[in-house]
Amino acid sequence: MTGSTPTSFTADDYRSRMERAARAAADAGLAGLLVAPGPDMVWLTGYAPTAITERLTVLVLTPDRPPVLVVPTLEAPDAAKAPGAGSLTLRDWTDGKDPYAATAALLDATGRFGISDNAWAMHLLGLQQTLPGTSYASLTDALPMLRAVKDTVELNLLAAAGEAADATYEEILKVPFAGRRESDVAGDLADLLRRFGHSQVDFTIVASGPNGANPHHEVGDRVIQRGDMVVLDFGGLKDGYGSDTSRTVHVGEPTDEERRVHDIVREAQEAGFRAVRPGVACQDVDRAARAVVNDAGYGEYFIHRTGHGIGVTTHEPPYMIEGEEQPLVPGMCFSVEPGIYLPGRFGVRIEDIVTVTEDGGRRLNDTRREMAVVD
Amino acid sequence: MTGSTPTSFTADDYRSRMERAARAAADAGLAGLLVAPGPDMVWLTGYAPTAITERLTVLVLTPDRPPVLVVPTLEAPDAAKAPGAGSLTLRDWTDGKDPYAATAALLDATGRFGISDNAWAMHLLGLQQTLPGTSYASLTDALPMLRAVKDTVELNLLAAAGEAADATYEEILKVPFAGRRESDVAGDLADLLRRFGHSQVDFTIVASGPNGANPHHEVGDRVIQRGDMVVLDFGGLKDGYGSDTSRTVHVGEPTDEERRVHDIVREAQEAGFRAVRPGVACQDVDRAARAVVNDAGYGEYFIHRTGHGIGVTTHEPPYMIEGEEQPLVPGMCFSVEPGIYLPGRFGVRIEDIVTVTEDGGRRLNDTRREMAVVD
Repeated sequence: MTGSTPTSFTADDYRSRMERAARAAADAGLAGLLVAPGPDMVWLTGYAPTAITERLTVLVLTPDRPPVLVVPTLEAPDAAKAPGAGSLTLRDWTDGKDPYAATAALLDATGRFGISDNAWAMHLLGLQQTLPGTSYASLTDALPMLRAVKDTVELNLLAAAGEAADATYEEILKVPFAGRRESDVAGDLADLLRRFGHSQVDFTIVASGPNGANPHHEVGDRVIQRGDMVVLDFGGLKDGYGSDTSRTVHVGEPTDEERRVHDIVREAQEAGFRAVRPGVACQDVDRAARAVVNDAGYGEYFIHRTGHGIGVTTHEPPYMIEGEEQPLVPGMCFSVEPGIYLPGRFGVRIEDIVTVTEDGGRRLNDTRREMAVVD
Repeated sequence: MTGSTPTSFTADDYRSRMERAARAAADAGLAGLLVAPGPDMVWLTGYAPTAITERLTVLVLTPDRPPVLVVPTLEAPDAAKAPGAGSLTLRDWTDGKDPYAATAALLDATGRFGISDNAWAMHLLGLQQTLPGTSYASLTDALPMLRAVKDTVELNLLAAAGEAADATYEEILKVPFAGRRESDVAGDLADLLRRFGHSQVDFTIVASGPNGANPHHEVGDRVIQRGDMVVLDFGGLKDGYGSDTSRTVHVGEPTDEERRVHDIVREAQEAGFRAVRPGVACQDVDRAARAVVNDAGYGEYFIHRTGHGIGVTTHEPPYMIEGEEQPLVPGMCFSVEPGIYLPGRFGVRIEDIVTVTEDGGRRLNDTRREMAVVD
């Protein structure tokens, strides 16, 4: 399943996005874009096939002709119902026929094309073999900011997803932690996200005690103990747009060291947030958060970038990372999520989704960041 | 989420699979295999990352050295816990470093490699750019039968998933159809699959009346009517292995024509099943089923191949399709699912999962195929 399609957009919205994408491709010197099922296709057409399989589905956007969706015959009736289908020509292909030849007929045989990051390697190889004179760049390399700047409707959807994440956090504080397994609390998080309107839960990290020192520990059978720090990191899609929030709670009273580490991360998160404004480079958001952790002497324990974009996915450009010089633009949305991970002991992470405004940043989820003590 | 990892296999099973895969690659003239997160990686290592993202994770299998898993530093602790991790060397890379350079160091710079079908195009492009002397083939092209022949434990897991699908079908016959939306019945199917042990529901097609004439219609808001044919096609993963079953039911008494079309599809399904035995080409299973439909005069309305493999996914090689000359081998498992689709009117599909035995075929789901009349 490829997730739900938001219903908040009109056929005009999709046509306008496809036109902008084709223009951006031309401006970047590309002969066109090859868009695979997944977030790019959902954003450009509203079409999300039932399943992403070995059968080729690809949207071909070129500057000089209207968009064409190459689609298996089986799936053409569903594709024809997509909200953006009115601005597309469908070209279907039948089991046993060569879908790469059908696609190649639409392409400049010596052109350079942008292709969705998550297009299947199998399909890229099929196109490369059929049209050996073509070359390709991933969309993240070629047009990293294609989906990065959100319009008002998108911002409202992201804000609604953030509110649902905030509500989930407030409720999870009321469940018992001590004596239950991480997986039990994770189940509660998923139930709450759905109760507050999420159609898809992407992750429900519950990382207790030493597990918290692994930033991507998802969840396990560990029984949460009194005295544990517990990193909670949860999100998914509500009406087609993402939430992603982290808070770190403590089961019973924390030690002075635990309080200190949590304070440092909270201060780092605040510094990252305060660095957000138009024109600032992505890497400066990372630097601002990292400086706080470094100055406190914990730099070696902050082992990941500070943030990632969010939209129709919970993970996309722009990335808040050293080396990313892309300037922030109003409407961009991304996480600010510094952390400190003390191997074998515990971890702390605090994460909000932030959007760039005309003169700064605004949090799209904003529930209390002070360390909560839970039972 | 990338689905659950089956727990039925030992570290030895995974080591043996990786060795066989590396040997098969060498036999096929490849310098090695590049295995992406997803079904290939689950099958070879038991490792399923929390999320499949832009961060490169790739298993490198070469004939001359032990397997290496290139993995983001963040995810290395989870990867180290995978059931096959004991036979792997982990090579982690940190945010901001070049994962393609790290991978390239493991590869013959002029070799030809097999790469997972579903590897991201972005990652293939990164490798092609870093090592311009390499070339690539999709695993389906290079080693289509890598996962196709199941061992006894796998067959038992597939049979258990099939039994759960049978039980789901028996229960769904008891729910009301007329007056409820397709999406309501689909929700019942998903609940039942989970109740009977599925951890992941991949599809719950409920295609009523004219919607049944679209083989990939998933589900909609259409209210099911008395007099409707309803195609049900549902499946997912139970303990890491797939189910996929279709039955077509009728709401109230069918017409003579509806009975006749259902009988033809049932006979075609039986003919496809009876064609299954070692040494027979995949395309002959398709031909056997199709001949029945053609002879009955409905050939133009059977608009898809007859079947697809199943294992750690619900859709994989071998494909039962004209042109596929691969001979059947004991232990292969695939669907036999002919259908007739009458545009604007109704559709019928009947599907069982079949495994090749020493002297024929055996159905892994086997609930009644006669047309059920529901309320």
